[in-house]
Amino acid sequence: MEQTSTFSHFQRAFKRIDQSKSFQWFVIAVIIISALTVGAHTYSLPPAMESALNIMDIAITVFFLVELVIRYLASDGIRSFFKKGWNIFDTIIVIGSLYPAAGSTILIARLLRIFRVLRLVSMVPELRVLVNALIKAIPQMGYIGLLMFVIFYIYAAIGSMLFADINPTLWSDVSISMLTLFRVATFEDWTDVMYETMEVYSLSWIYYLTFIFLTAFIFLNMMVGTILEVMSEEHKQLREEQNPDADTMATSQEMQALNEKLDQLQATLAEMNKK
Amino acid sequence: MEQTSTFSHFQRAFKRIDQSKSFQWFVIAVIIISALTVGAHTYSLPPAMESALNIMDIAITVFFLVELVIRYLASDGIRSFFKKGWNIFDTIIVIGSLYPAAGSTILIARLLRIFRVLRLVSMVPELRVLVNALIKAIPQMGYIGLLMFVIFYIYAAIGSMLFADINPTLWSDVSISMLTLFRVATFEDWTDVMYETMEVYSLSWIYYLTFIFLTAFIFLNMMVGTILEVMSEEHKQLREEQNPDADTMATSQEMQALNEKLDQLQATLAEMNKK
Amino acid sequence: MEQTSTFSHFQRAFKRIDQSKSFQWFVIAVIIISALTVGAHTYSLPPAMESALNIMDIAITVFFLVELVIRYLASDGIRSFFKKGWNIFDTIIVIGSLYPAAGSTILIARLLRIFRVLRLVSMVPELRVLVNALIKAIPQMGYIGLLMFVIFYIYAAIGSMLFADINPTLWSDVSISMLTLFRVATFEDWTDVMYETMEVYSLSWIYYLTFIFLTAFIFLNMMVGTILEVMSEEHKQLREEQNPDADTMATSQEMQALNEKLDQLQATLAEMNKK
Amino acid sequence: MEQTSTFSHFQRAFKRIDQSKSFQWFVIAVIIISALTVGAHTYSLPPAMESALNIMDIAITVFFLVELVIRYLASDGIRSFFKKGWNIFDTIIVIGSLYPAAGSTILIARLLRIFRVLRLVSMVPELRVLVNALIKAIPQMGYIGLLMFVIFYIYAAIGSMLFADINPTLWSDVSISMLTLFRVATFEDWTDVMYETMEVYSLSWIYYLTFIFLTAFIFLNMMVGTILEVMSEEHKQLREEQNPDADTMATSQEMQALNEKLDQLQATLAEMNKK
Repeated sequence: MEQTSTFSHFQRAFKRIDQSKSFQWFVIAVIIISALTVGAHTYSLPPAMESALNIMDIAITVFFLVELVIRYLASDGIRSFFKKGWNIFDTIIVIGSLYPAAGSTILIARLLRIFRVLRLVSMVPELRVLVNALIKAIPQMGYIGLLMFVIFYIYAAIGSMLFADINPTLWSDVSISMLTLFRVATFEDWTDVMYETMEVYSLSWIYYLTFIFLTAFIFLNMMVGTILEVMSEEHKQLREEQNPDADTMATSQEMQALNEKLDQLQATLAEMNKK
Repeated sequence: MEQTSTFSHFQRAFKRIDQSKSFQWFVIAVIIISALTVGAHTYSLPPAMESALNIMDIAITVFFLVELVIRYLASDGIRSFFKKGWNIFDTIIVIGSLYPAAGSTILIARLLRIFRVLRLVSMVPELRVLVNALIKAIPQMGYIGLLMFVIFYIYAAIGSMLFADINPTLWSDVSISMLTLFRVATFEDWTDVMYETMEVYSLSWIYYLTFIFLTAFIFLNMMVGTILEVMSEEHKQLREEQNPDADTMATSQEMQALNEKLDQLQATLAEMNKK
Repeated sequence: MEQTSTFSHFQRAFKRIDQSKSFQWFVIAVIIISALTVGAHTYSLPPAMESALNIMDIAITVFFLVELVIRYLASDGIRSFFKKGWNIFDTIIVIGSLYPAAGSTILIARLLRIFRVLRLVSMVPELRVLVNALIKAIPQMGYIGLLMFVIFYIYAAIGSMLFADINPTLWSDVSISMLTLFRVATFEDWTDVMYETMEVYSLSWIYYLTFIFLTAFIFLNMMVGTILEVMSEEHKQLREEQNPDADTMATSQEMQALNEKLDQLQATLAEMNKK
Repeated sequence: MEQTSTFSHFQRAFKRIDQSKSFQWFVIAVIIISALTVGAHTYSLPPAMESALNIMDIAITVFFLVELVIRYLASDGIRSFFKKGWNIFDTIIVIGSLYPAAGSTILIARLLRIFRVLRLVSMVPELRVLVNALIKAIPQMGYIGLLMFVIFYIYAAIGSMLFADINPTLWSDVSISMLTLFRVATFEDWTDVMYETMEVYSLSWIYYLTFIFLTAFIFLNMMVGTILEVMSEEHKQLREEQNPDADTMATSQEMQALNEKLDQLQATLAEMNKK
């Protein structure tokens, strides 16, 4: 029992640390330093600096591990800890960065360490809210994405059939063609692509223009759709806030009922008056 | 009579097949395989693979034909079948893909087969809703499209008059000029086009800038207009849902009428009291 | 008096002609033919065709003049005719196209004739509504345009001071620099411009990035502003339609007044009952 | 005491000058002349013109100083003067332009003088309103900007690790890579960048496409978010204007209470009638 008490004593301490503003700011500072360390590695540095960075890298890795352990101990068991998506997110990043940054796989280790910058998102509440909102918007765009893919696929298949011999680099097969079409959709030197095929098929501008109109048209509608979807949701929420269940508006119908009752009252009184 | 019974027995069976989830998923799977087959043809493949693909292609064509027949038999006669736009759409695609994929016209056959991917739209209800919404948005954009065309035409006529001698590839006649202007509207290497004409007509930047501002301005307004149109429609729908005909809001005017009736009542009572 | 009667007889006839659907469709047809004639001139044609086009051009010019006269005679005097902006618009275009299409100034004549296509806007009511809406949106954008111009001017002055020696073609003076900045704002090969100046001033990317962010930011806000402006106007209009002056909603305050009156009534009755 | 009176006499005079429409228009005129002077310096001019411009420049500098002093004297002391942000803004610009436009630092002097054009914003009320609105929109975009920066940083770090050896000009370190990625985000010759790296890493199109989708997706959401934020604020304001605190809508619940009271009244009367 004494042990439990000691443990809960520790847990309270960890919770205090975990929730203190100064600790959170310190973690954010370490994340930023970690980001700068990763960035510094991309410059050519003197060997002394390199080794200093490597030591710092180890220190940061250890700190993140310790911070995760503190946060875990501060939570109420393994279940409640992993219930929060952001905790899973942090755990994966921290474990990923344990990969040893040495030897032939140093590139992989560094790539994994870059993602520690993402911990900024899980630490700053405003960014967390933002990312949650972005994730919510994904399903809305799913079917539009599928429709876009179908259009890209059809145009890519047509393109690779007709234009493969004109420029194999751009049109040799359906996947390369889709990349070329994505380039056309971003208006990136698309006329060069078009003029090349127009020399053989002089009507191929129809292919490009219909494609651009279709994708632009669907994209425009996607944007409008997303705006409306989000807005109608906000409106719905607002209406529910304003009108709790019992508080519906008074209608003319109800007014009419009151009016009739008053007429009856008046009639009754008139009758009484006569007597 | 027995025959009819047998037939209606078959019809019920076909309806069961047509409406079963597993059959629909199977059709979707075949559509995706069909799409992959079309895509695979664009790669250079070993002859064995080619012939396998050809056999698969025949199988898919037959399957789509059978599926269409099942769907037709499950429907209540030819009229109700072709009342649905999507059935017409499917029939055209399936008949189009019956074109023999052999000989000198193999390219046409393959092009017709690509459109089988579009059957994904008629099979997945969410995509069908999306495409219906897109089709609804077309008339809104019709007149803006016409206005845009008028502006393009006028600028193209001016452009081909002034710049035809400077660069015949870009400005030789009104149709080529419109293509060049579309390129300018997408900002695709438009400065190259401009700098070339500015060497002869140093004020020709006015031509390009007014064109860009006009098209961008109209496009912006088109977008805003579409958003508003769709939104006001949604609002209208919402209001009608909230306020069915008899349930209009109570107004201050009605309140005033009630108020006056109560005043009369009070007067009557006061009179009675005096007696 | 008889003359007046004859005249008013003619006026009625002209009005009938002017307002008949078939005449309007015929005018639209002539406008389209006029547009095609202008377009045809940009192609190199056989001499026979050229002279046919010239005869057609004269016929169209005469027809437009006649149509304008009919419309004028159908109107109630010169004042009411020129009160409508579209009539002034048509008159200017028709008079402009009277410029003789021959001799050394044939180019000017043809340029003036192109604008006859714009008569399509004044003939089709839907296009007229559209253009009126676009004209209404101009003042909203006026001050944003001024702000944009100030930003362009400041950046252009800085640019021509710092970069004039690096590339005189792009930065020699403030007006050329503004054109270069417009190019940067449309993202047209802007990195080429930037990389060139970064070789001398390695920090000049700050110049380009701040410029791009400023213009994009202001443009975004302009768009949002326009959408909101138009929407709030629509809402205002809608509210006024729904609630004519006397029909304001019943408020809880008015309800309270009724409630108090009923309490008084009840008190009076209770008193009466006691007697 | 007489001195104070003289001073307040002067103050009133200055206030009259400061607030007179004609003085304000004169200031605006001087600002525009000042802008043109700055612009004129970027052209190569004859020496006589140059010296005339220099004299004009001094005159403008003195005028702005005098105008600021008048405005200061017209205000109620130093505190109330610097309370307005736009006065601080003007003071900084005027003091900055006092830097002598001669010798080796003439470029700095001219750069400082360019910003006098910005005084147009502080003089024209409509522009002031616009800029205030833009400044208000900045915090909304702050966290989105941070999120964008995180994404750019991660991609830049990955890019400089993988592609540094392929093209050091574009990918040598993390800061250069961020610039390259900004170029990709503006679709500026991004395929050239991609094709170059695809020769070594054939799957590097994944890197570019995910980056483009992420930035476009976040940008789209930013736009939608900003529109909604501004709109919901406008709605809130509108609702508060329409419904001052006491004027909440009448509810069905209140109606029910009135109804019950009338029932009681009727019951009382019925009882009275029996007697």
